[in-house]
Amino acid sequence: MSVKKRYALGLDYGTESVRALVVDCDNGFEAAQAVVPYAHGVITRSLPGNDKPLPPDFALQHPQDYLDGALTAIRAILEKVTAADIVGIGVDFTACTILPVREDGTPLMQAAKFHNNPHAWVKLWKHHAAQPEADRVNEVAHRRQEPFLKYYSGLISSEWMLPKAWEIANHAPEVYAEAAYLIDAGDWIVQQLTGKFTRNSCTAGYKGLWNAELGFPRLEFLTALDPKLSGLRDKWLQNIVAPGELAGHVTPKFAVLSGLLEGTPVSAATIDAHSGVAGMGVYREGPVSLIMGTSTCHMVLSRKLHLFDGYAGVVKDGIIPGFHGYESGQSAVGDIFGWFAKGFMNTDFDQLSNKAAALKPGQSGLIALDWLNGNRSLLMNANLTGMILGLTLDSKPEEVYRAWIEGTAFGTRMIVDAHTANGIPATELVICGGLVRDPMIMQIYADITGLPVKIAASGQAVALGAAIFGALVALGENIEDVITRMTKPHVKTYSPDEDAHRTYDRLYEVYHRAHDLFGVENKHLMRNLKDLRKETLHVQ
Amino acid sequence: MSVKKRYALGLDYGTESVRALVVDCDNGFEAAQAVVPYAHGVITRSLPGNDKPLPPDFALQHPQDYLDGALTAIRAILEKVTAADIVGIGVDFTACTILPVREDGTPLMQAAKFHNNPHAWVKLWKHHAAQPEADRVNEVAHRRQEPFLKYYSGLISSEWMLPKAWEIANHAPEVYAEAAYLIDAGDWIVQQLTGKFTRNSCTAGYKGLWNAELGFPRLEFLTALDPKLSGLRDKWLQNIVAPGELAGHVTPKFAVLSGLLEGTPVSAATIDAHSGVAGMGVYREGPVSLIMGTSTCHMVLSRKLHLFDGYAGVVKDGIIPGFHGYESGQSAVGDIFGWFAKGFMNTDFDQLSNKAAALKPGQSGLIALDWLNGNRSLLMNANLTGMILGLTLDSKPEEVYRAWIEGTAFGTRMIVDAHTANGIPATELVICGGLVRDPMIMQIYADITGLPVKIAASGQAVALGAAIFGALVALGENIEDVITRMTKPHVKTYSPDEDAHRTYDRLYEVYHRAHDLFGVENKHLMRNLKDLRKETLHVQ
Repeated sequence: MSVKKRYALGLDYGTESVRALVVDCDNGFEAAQAVVPYAHGVITRSLPGNDKPLPPDFALQHPQDYLDGALTAIRAILEKVTAADIVGIGVDFTACTILPVREDGTPLMQAAKFHNNPHAWVKLWKHHAAQPEADRVNEVAHRRQEPFLKYYSGLISSEWMLPKAWEIANHAPEVYAEAAYLIDAGDWIVQQLTGKFTRNSCTAGYKGLWNAELGFPRLEFLTALDPKLSGLRDKWLQNIVAPGELAGHVTPKFAVLSGLLEGTPVSAATIDAHSGVAGMGVYREGPVSLIMGTSTCHMVLSRKLHLFDGYAGVVKDGIIPGFHGYESGQSAVGDIFGWFAKGFMNTDFDQLSNKAAALKPGQSGLIALDWLNGNRSLLMNANLTGMILGLTLDSKPEEVYRAWIEGTAFGTRMIVDAHTANGIPATELVICGGLVRDPMIMQIYADITGLPVKIAASGQAVALGAAIFGALVALGENIEDVITRMTKPHVKTYSPDEDAHRTYDRLYEVYHRAHDLFGVENKHLMRNLKDLRKETLHVQ
Repeated sequence: MSVKKRYALGLDYGTESVRALVVDCDNGFEAAQAVVPYAHGVITRSLPGNDKPLPPDFALQHPQDYLDGALTAIRAILEKVTAADIVGIGVDFTACTILPVREDGTPLMQAAKFHNNPHAWVKLWKHHAAQPEADRVNEVAHRRQEPFLKYYSGLISSEWMLPKAWEIANHAPEVYAEAAYLIDAGDWIVQQLTGKFTRNSCTAGYKGLWNAELGFPRLEFLTALDPKLSGLRDKWLQNIVAPGELAGHVTPKFAVLSGLLEGTPVSAATIDAHSGVAGMGVYREGPVSLIMGTSTCHMVLSRKLHLFDGYAGVVKDGIIPGFHGYESGQSAVGDIFGWFAKGFMNTDFDQLSNKAAALKPGQSGLIALDWLNGNRSLLMNANLTGMILGLTLDSKPEEVYRAWIEGTAFGTRMIVDAHTANGIPATELVICGGLVRDPMIMQIYADITGLPVKIAASGQAVALGAAIFGALVALGENIEDVITRMTKPHVKTYSPDEDAHRTYDRLYEVYHRAHDLFGVENKHLMRNLKDLRKETLHVQ
C-alpha cells in the first residue's frame, strides 16, 4: 500500500504568465507544472478593441487573464496529480499590481461604462504614470516628517499603492468613487479562490506603506495630500494576514471551475520575488537573493533592523519570519537585454551573446546606466532613463549589449554596497530566474560585485516559494523545517575572477560618477526629456 | 570658328577618394569629372599585407593611392576635354594629413625597412593617436604663454602637424631621423605635379601653428617640449605660398604620366573644406559655410579679427583674401549616421531615414553627444566619446538615428552661438557636401539653429573651389570676379519652423548641460574609459 502523497500547489503570477507548480511537501519533488501566458499580455499601446492610444508609461493588464490562466494551468497539472493529494495552496503575484473592484470582488473594468476607461483596468507593477502623484507624496510626506518614511529609505515609488490609487482619483474620479476596494492583484486572486478578502502583510508592507509598528498612513496625511483621499483608508483592505498563514479555503464554486477540492486551505498571498527567497532555500543572514528576469528584485535578511538610504523597503517578517526583510530592485534587467537584442537590433540573441562573451572587461570602453524603466532602488525615480557613454565609430552591437549587462550588474553592486556600508554585509549572491541560464551574465555579476554567485537548484524557485507557503498552511510546521525539506542545495557557483574584478572596479568608478551626475545632481535633465516627450506625444 | 575654351582643373582629395573636376573659367560649367576611390581606403585595423593590429585611434593611408587615383581620374576627364584647354590646376586635400618623405619627395614608407612601420605611412586627419602629445603641447604652450595660442582658442588638436610629428619622434625615432620633411599631403601632391616644394598658407595656418604675424613656433618652445624636436623646424617646409598663388608648373614627367600639358600652372594647395567656401560662392560676412560629409567643417569670414574661445583656428586670408577666416569642425557627422545605420544596425539607410523623418522634435526623449570621433571645436579633445541619454524600453532605432542627427545639429549650434556671442553674427548656413541630399537633415539643422539653410548650387563645391584657385593662377584676376563667374546662386532654402525651433530650444538646454558635464566638468570620465580600453586591447 503506497503512502499518501502530500503535495502543495504554488500559483505564481509573473508579468507575462501564470505558473502552477505542484511540489511534494516531504522531499521537494516537483511533480507537475504548467505555464499559461496571459491572453492580453502587458497592455501599453491601447486597450483591447480600442484604437485610442494609452498615455506614455501606462502598463495595464486584464484581470480575466489571471483567472483564465490559473484555471487552464490547474486543469493541466490535475492531469498529472490527484486533487485530493493537494493539501495546501500558495499564491505569489507581481507587485504592486492593483485593480479597483466592487464589494463582491468584481473588477470595475467589467462594467460597460468603465470598459474603455484605462483606470478601471489592472495597473501592473511597471505602470509608471503615477510619478507626478509619487512626487507629491514624497514632498508632503517629507514636509510632515511622516514616520513611515524611514522604512522606505525616505522614498515612495510611483509603482506603489498610494500613488496609483491617487492617480485613479485624479484621472478617473467616477472609477475611484465606485470602487469598493483598491486591491492588490494577489489578494484578489486569493479572494477569488476562497471568497474571503485578506490583505497580505508582504505586499501591504513593501508596497502599501503599512507596517506592524505604525499601521497604515494616517488620515491627516491622506487629506493633506488631497481632500478627496479622505475615504481611501476604507478602500484599503485592512485585515492583514501573513504569507504562510491561512487566508481561507477553496470555495465550492472555484472547486467546480478548477477541479481542486473544495475546502483546500489557501495561504495569504505574497510578492513573487519575496516568495523566491524561500524557494531558493535562503533563511539566514549573508546571502543577497536575486530574482533575475525582466526586472531584478534583491532581498536581504537581517536579524537586526538597520535604517539607511538605499533599499526600497524593509518589513519585519516580510520575507522570512524572524528577519527584517530588505527589498531593493532594478526595474528593467532582462527587459533591457530583450529590448536591445530583439526590439532594437532585431537580431539573434545567441549570436549577440556569443560575441559579447568573447570580450574582455573594459575592452568596449562603454558604460551604461540601466534605467530604461526608471530606478527603483537607491534613487527611486521613474523619470530616470537609460544612458550609454563611451561610444565611438568602432563601437559594435555586442559591445553595447555587454555594456547593458554590465550596467545592470553595476546597479546591483550599488545596492549590495549600500547594505554592506550600513551593517548588513553580503557574503554571496544567490540567484534564480530566467537569466541564470546565461553563464556570461552570471560571471559578469560575480566579477563586478566580487562575490560568489550561486544558482538556485529549482528552476522555479518563485513558484516553489508559493508552494512552501501553501505547505505551511496545510502542515502548520516551522518554516525552516519546511524550507529545508522542500528545497535543494545550489547547483552551481560562479567565482569572481580577480583580474576582471580589478578592471571592473575602475569602470565602477565611472559608473558611480555617471550614476550621481544623472541620478542625483542633474536628475532634472532626464526628467525634462521625459516631460517634453509626453507633451509632444500628447499634442499629436 | 569656336572660341577657345578656358578650363580649370580641380583635384579634390577627400577621405575616401580623389575627384577631378574640370570647370569652365568663363561660366562655371562643369565640363567633366571623375572620382577614384583610394585602393587601400582608410587603414585602421592593420597595415596592408600585415596581420599586426594597429593601436586604437590609428587612421593611416597609402600615399601611392593619391597618385594612382589622380592619374586614373585625370586620364578619365581627358577623354572628355582637351588637355590644351586646361589653363590652371588647383589642389585641395584633407588636413592635417601628413607623411614623412625624403629630400626628393619619396615617401619613407616605400623603403623596405620602413614598410611595416605605421609611423612611416600617411597619418590621415582623423588619426587620433597623438592625443598624449597634444595634451603635452597644450600644457607647455599654456605654461609658456606661447603667443600662437590666441589664434586657436587656446587649444591645439591632436589632429595637427606638431602632435603628429612628435608622435613619430616618440614612437619611431628612426623614421623621424630619416625624414627630410614632414609634409602636408596636399603640398606633397603639388610637389609631385610640379617638382617644387611649397607650403600652403592655409594648411600651415590652420594645422601647422604658423601665422603671418608670428611665423612658426619658436625653437625654444619646441625644445621645451622635447630636446629631440630641436631639428623639427628644418623638417617643416617654410616657403609659404597662398592658395591661388603659383606653386609651380606641371613637370615633363607628370605630363607624360597624366596626359596633362607640361607647364600648366598649379596653385598652392588648400584644405578641402576651406576650398568649398569659394566653391559655394561665399565671399562675405554673415553666412556660416558648412561642408557636411563624413565630418563637418564650419567656416566663417570676418573683416575684423575677434579673438575668443570657440573656434579651431583663425587665419588671416586663410579662406578668402581680405577676411579673417575662422574654422571650426565636428570630427564625425555623416560617419556617425553611417556607423549607426550600416555598421551598427546593418539596416537600410532609407528605411531608417523615412521613419526618422516622421518623428516630431522632442518625441523620442533622446539627446546625443556627437563625439564618436572626439570633439574638435569648442572642446578640442580627441578623448571625448559619444553618449546617448533618455533611452527607455520603448526607444526605437529610428529615434536613436534621429537623435544622432539632432546631436550633430546641436553641436553646430554650439559653434554658431560662440561666434555670435563674440561679435560675428550668423545670418544663414550655406551647405554643401554629401549630406545635403537628405532634406530631413537639412530641415533639422534649420530648426535647431533657427537659421535659414541654403544649399550650394554645385554638387562638387569643394572641387569647384580647387578649380577656382587653379583659374586664379592661370588668369591672375580678382578672386571675387572669378568666384562670381564660376559659381551659381543657391538652389534651395530650408526655413526654420518656429514651433520646432521652440521645442529644440528646450532640448538644446539639455544638450548644453550634458555637453558641459562630460566635455568640461567631468571630461576625465570619457578619458578613463578610453584609457582602460587601450590598456585592455594592448594587454591582449
